[in-house]
Amino acid sequence: MSFNTFGQLFRVTTWGESHGPAIGAVVDGCPPGIELSEADIQPYLDKRRPGQSRFTTQRQEPDQVRILSGIYEGKTTGTPISLMIENTDQRSKDYANITARYRPGHADVAYDMKYGHRDPRGGGRSSARETAMRVAAGAIARKVLGPDVVIRGAMVAMGAHKIDRTRWDWGQVDENPFFCPDALTATEWEAELDAIRKAGSSIGAVLEVVVEGVKPGLGAPLYSKLDADIAAALMSINAVKAVEIGDGFDAAALRGEENADEMRMKEGKVEFLSNHAGGILGGIATGQPIIARFAVKPTSSILIPKRSISADGEEVEVMTKGRHDPCVGIRAVPVGEAMLACVLTDHLLRHRGQTGR
Amino acid sequence: MSFNTFGQLFRVTTWGESHGPAIGAVVDGCPPGIELSEADIQPYLDKRRPGQSRFTTQRQEPDQVRILSGIYEGKTTGTPISLMIENTDQRSKDYANITARYRPGHADVAYDMKYGHRDPRGGGRSSARETAMRVAAGAIARKVLGPDVVIRGAMVAMGAHKIDRTRWDWGQVDENPFFCPDALTATEWEAELDAIRKAGSSIGAVLEVVVEGVKPGLGAPLYSKLDADIAAALMSINAVKAVEIGDGFDAAALRGEENADEMRMKEGKVEFLSNHAGGILGGIATGQPIIARFAVKPTSSILIPKRSISADGEEVEVMTKGRHDPCVGIRAVPVGEAMLACVLTDHLLRHRGQTGR
Amino acid sequence: MSFNTFGQLFRVTTWGESHGPAIGAVVDGCPPGIELSEADIQPYLDKRRPGQSRFTTQRQEPDQVRILSGIYEGKTTGTPISLMIENTDQRSKDYANITARYRPGHADVAYDMKYGHRDPRGGGRSSARETAMRVAAGAIARKVLGPDVVIRGAMVAMGAHKIDRTRWDWGQVDENPFFCPDALTATEWEAELDAIRKAGSSIGAVLEVVVEGVKPGLGAPLYSKLDADIAAALMSINAVKAVEIGDGFDAAALRGEENADEMRMKEGKVEFLSNHAGGILGGIATGQPIIARFAVKPTSSILIPKRSISADGEEVEVMTKGRHDPCVGIRAVPVGEAMLACVLTDHLLRHRGQTGR
Amino acid sequence: MSFNTFGQLFRVTTWGESHGPAIGAVVDGCPPGIELSEADIQPYLDKRRPGQSRFTTQRQEPDQVRILSGIYEGKTTGTPISLMIENTDQRSKDYANITARYRPGHADVAYDMKYGHRDPRGGGRSSARETAMRVAAGAIARKVLGPDVVIRGAMVAMGAHKIDRTRWDWGQVDENPFFCPDALTATEWEAELDAIRKAGSSIGAVLEVVVEGVKPGLGAPLYSKLDADIAAALMSINAVKAVEIGDGFDAAALRGEENADEMRMKEGKVEFLSNHAGGILGGIATGQPIIARFAVKPTSSILIPKRSISADGEEVEVMTKGRHDPCVGIRAVPVGEAMLACVLTDHLLRHRGQTGR
Repeated sequence: MSFNTFGQLFRVTTWGESHGPAIGAVVDGCPPGIELSEADIQPYLDKRRPGQSRFTTQRQEPDQVRILSGIYEGKTTGTPISLMIENTDQRSKDYANITARYRPGHADVAYDMKYGHRDPRGGGRSSARETAMRVAAGAIARKVLGPDVVIRGAMVAMGAHKIDRTRWDWGQVDENPFFCPDALTATEWEAELDAIRKAGSSIGAVLEVVVEGVKPGLGAPLYSKLDADIAAALMSINAVKAVEIGDGFDAAALRGEENADEMRMKEGKVEFLSNHAGGILGGIATGQPIIARFAVKPTSSILIPKRSISADGEEVEVMTKGRHDPCVGIRAVPVGEAMLACVLTDHLLRHRGQTGR
Repeated sequence: MSFNTFGQLFRVTTWGESHGPAIGAVVDGCPPGIELSEADIQPYLDKRRPGQSRFTTQRQEPDQVRILSGIYEGKTTGTPISLMIENTDQRSKDYANITARYRPGHADVAYDMKYGHRDPRGGGRSSARETAMRVAAGAIARKVLGPDVVIRGAMVAMGAHKIDRTRWDWGQVDENPFFCPDALTATEWEAELDAIRKAGSSIGAVLEVVVEGVKPGLGAPLYSKLDADIAAALMSINAVKAVEIGDGFDAAALRGEENADEMRMKEGKVEFLSNHAGGILGGIATGQPIIARFAVKPTSSILIPKRSISADGEEVEVMTKGRHDPCVGIRAVPVGEAMLACVLTDHLLRHRGQTGR
Repeated sequence: MSFNTFGQLFRVTTWGESHGPAIGAVVDGCPPGIELSEADIQPYLDKRRPGQSRFTTQRQEPDQVRILSGIYEGKTTGTPISLMIENTDQRSKDYANITARYRPGHADVAYDMKYGHRDPRGGGRSSARETAMRVAAGAIARKVLGPDVVIRGAMVAMGAHKIDRTRWDWGQVDENPFFCPDALTATEWEAELDAIRKAGSSIGAVLEVVVEGVKPGLGAPLYSKLDADIAAALMSINAVKAVEIGDGFDAAALRGEENADEMRMKEGKVEFLSNHAGGILGGIATGQPIIARFAVKPTSSILIPKRSISADGEEVEVMTKGRHDPCVGIRAVPVGEAMLACVLTDHLLRHRGQTGR
Repeated sequence: MSFNTFGQLFRVTTWGESHGPAIGAVVDGCPPGIELSEADIQPYLDKRRPGQSRFTTQRQEPDQVRILSGIYEGKTTGTPISLMIENTDQRSKDYANITARYRPGHADVAYDMKYGHRDPRGGGRSSARETAMRVAAGAIARKVLGPDVVIRGAMVAMGAHKIDRTRWDWGQVDENPFFCPDALTATEWEAELDAIRKAGSSIGAVLEVVVEGVKPGLGAPLYSKLDADIAAALMSINAVKAVEIGDGFDAAALRGEENADEMRMKEGKVEFLSNHAGGILGGIATGQPIIARFAVKPTSSILIPKRSISADGEEVEVMTKGRHDPCVGIRAVPVGEAMLACVLTDHLLRHRGQTGR
């Protein structure tokens, strides 16, 4: 992955700042002959779109994506697909008072350390707004993977409050504003997040993405391990601080005999009796569901004043009045799904290239 | 990262199987004029080398590295540095009875799914033996980074048993066979691991790498985030299932005001009052210590029989009699350090290229 | 170079079809803090723009470039610069009768062989229209290189008719419609090309780009040789069939003692007494002017009927009635200059990264 | 292509200096299950090997290649293939008197400009010795391409003396020391080169590589054009100054109707009636023979004294007494073939990845 591009054969390059005229992406390497229109992409963008509940930023962006190239008569041509979303509701004035003051926990100070010159409006390039293009690219990736590959994400913890996994029901995920698979917990989160929002604070979250139907053999040793690429893809999302595959950190606590996913034969195929590995061994997919979890820190844009400095080196207090997400992790669910879709598509093309299968 | 190469300007390509004639690496892009000899690399290899205590595999490999190119009169020339270690103690017969039987939890079944043809001796390419070359490359990276960048690793949990961080003492790390910074815990681990080893079992671990002295500004948006590259680098190590930066998963449980690392000025420079971020904001180094943790699962090569299948699809029981690590996480400490060194060097060269600083 | 991206640290990704809604490019890796606006780019686009004389296609495109990201308060921020030109004059109906018939010598048959599905309007992705974005990217590259690096191109042969190099005058290049440095030859070409144009035919050309002020040491062994990257960059331009550096093919006819560029010292620096090498030795710039020449074949879109086949495998005759360039090589001059600018910028950043100079 | 690696899915990384202990390559991405042993590679190395006639350097290198990884039971495993050749006859003393004096026309001065520190023995990294590893990698690439793809090279001009193409006979190529397909010209070259050799001089050459049996559709727009990648690959060979595809520079002299390769149908397939294009249109293979030519300059290591400078900036005269090739172009024939094999293999894997065909 290099600067603003990820993938090797299925390559996604994104561009754009939060308050510039538009954001966009170029998806290069998409196979030809795939039916694709804006209608395939829009539903995923709508899922990520801000302003859908009181728990996400009230910025109103219709986020209508346009395809500018790479499609002819409704099908991909194999040439680059250019995607663009115009920014419409960029109330930069909301940010006027913070341009010169770094928000503690936010990337703006680091951008200045690196570049010395930065678009401060709404976080500029470091804004979570960029993730809209990941979601759009992910929608194209899903078309390449086909309907047999099912990618679903969920929020599994808000703050320290985890879901009860015994109540997991994928059917619930679209029934609450949290993509929560546990209806009861969702209700409790609602009250908790209301309190956090009213306090001008924010809270972190843990998200989980599960992928079923992955072809065994995808992935590759050693530095292109499927899990290494997934880790990079998820860690590249704004505010993500941790990634795990399968049992993840809990695997460290296991004995060898507990962690081993035993195998039997079933109808001529390998059947695993458990899935501690999260569907990946040695960086290669085994055909079991791929399970990835990631942690999103709380938004740094809060109403509670914190000590900071200005770009001029003055000691100041900072609080952010813009419209923000009290739990930015919520909107990371479709983003995480999209990243998995992109990584798997890239690996599919590379695997097919190397092995001819 | 692509197949067996990682890095973009500081590029490391490794090759070799556990029981082939040799293993090696090509380090391309190393700056010219740096003093380098085998003596700079060997100490790090010795730290990773098996057979040093009863807690690591009893395979005896002197692991003497040879530099075959890229050096003239004791200094790097800017051309590729070829490194090679000959394999000497490859008792393949130990593995004779497992060639056709997949170890549950091991990559061998996945390699067969991908390639259909595989060197089974000692894990072949998927063996942890490959990590010796990462350590060698990391030693070169340290020379590029210079003495002001201090990279240190430690084991912070064996199984569910964590160290007491209040007793953290870097001076202890080389005084026990676990790279444990907490002398008391190290003693307790000794007894525990003896029991595990005698039971023919194995156990996972959590490792932590801390890097001090990193130049603020290293790293890059958005898909080359420093933390994204670190996550990929650590996840690409054998048996690693999870990675976190700074507070990692714990950050998900925090409120925005708790997670924010406040800033003051000190002697004309930014001083952070805490380090929840682990030294990285928006994918860019802030100058604070970089803190990365990763989880290693227990070795799958154990003496306890588990249900599995053979390459022919026969249902079998598998136990592994070869010489193995009861806690393979121990030897992952120098490997993790090396991966951080390589990632930081790559970012240093790219940063210098883009910004001229 | 991969699919639609070239460069490693200074990366240019282009997208768009001749008759789609727009064409564009994303320039990633541009250093921060460089003053840049559309006004820096437009003059180069105007130079390449069609419809400026009777010797280039009569398609009227204002080719107004817009910068959509990566700039704040008139300066680059180090984040991706998105460029877009809307297509306005896409008379697709001109092409209606050729959609299903392959033009002999044109890429359309090859695209169908590869992708099976293709945008046929005006050549789609294979149209020379894409080169506008190369020119735009090249304008940015020139800003990075700074004013001391002077990149100039010229047409040195039209068909078999070469210029007289003893009359070379850079001042003439903008005084005739051919970018010809030899005023007398330009006059003769005018008459010749009029005749070709009226005959509904087309003609090839040879172009030369000279770069002065290149920092010695840019370039790199062995597969990133400066001349290897230049060769790829020029050969990737539409209709280019040959590339040479310095004496090029003529070097094959020389004796060792004739080809050797002797050296003396002048004011403490190396002075070369000749420049057979074209400024590059072993893939590395010597500080002498870099000289690259490339050949452009005649446009395949001509009014003279030729035997061909249709997409359905029917044997047909094809003649192309659209507006085309009788000598497409003319407009390749600014494109060649731009490619050199991009390659040199990429090497500048990589060199700076590796050597710190 | 980056530094010392070329290719994207079929990746070749080379290392080693002329007078170091060994040279080598790592071939990564080779498909699994291909029968491969040293015996598949050695014949190509023998063809390139020095000391086979009085027209190539008298350095005696057995050039015995060893495969150190990536093969199990005689077949590739899909993991990196490490190749090594030990240097045995490195009479460095021959070069003792030139270490500090730059040979005019040689890369050594440029390496010092870039790196400031360089292995001067026998050209170090810039020595043509490196091309042995390209030939070895090319032999592996041929195995991937399979027997239907026939890659053959020939020398078509020595100095200004071209072959008579009407006498072209592939059967002659291995019957003379020049890989010359025209027996009569070969005899004349013999006398001419004897004279050059005795005069302590050297001479350039033009080589041609023809590839038959290439799958239509290989290649890709726009910066991965098959011809762009071929141009880079050939230009990256030592001493190459020019590359052309099909009619190359001669295409510039043609009219559109002359250059157009007309098409008819033959047995349900496209048949081209000529091959001005050299088998590539729009960067994509058409199924016709791919024809590439390249020019090699005369060796700069000659016995004739030339004015130069020393590394200390002293003005000196230089003549080179080492064993050198009077026409280094001869040995470039197998190298050119190998580069074509590698480029085509890389494109085959990428094409298969993207299109599934």
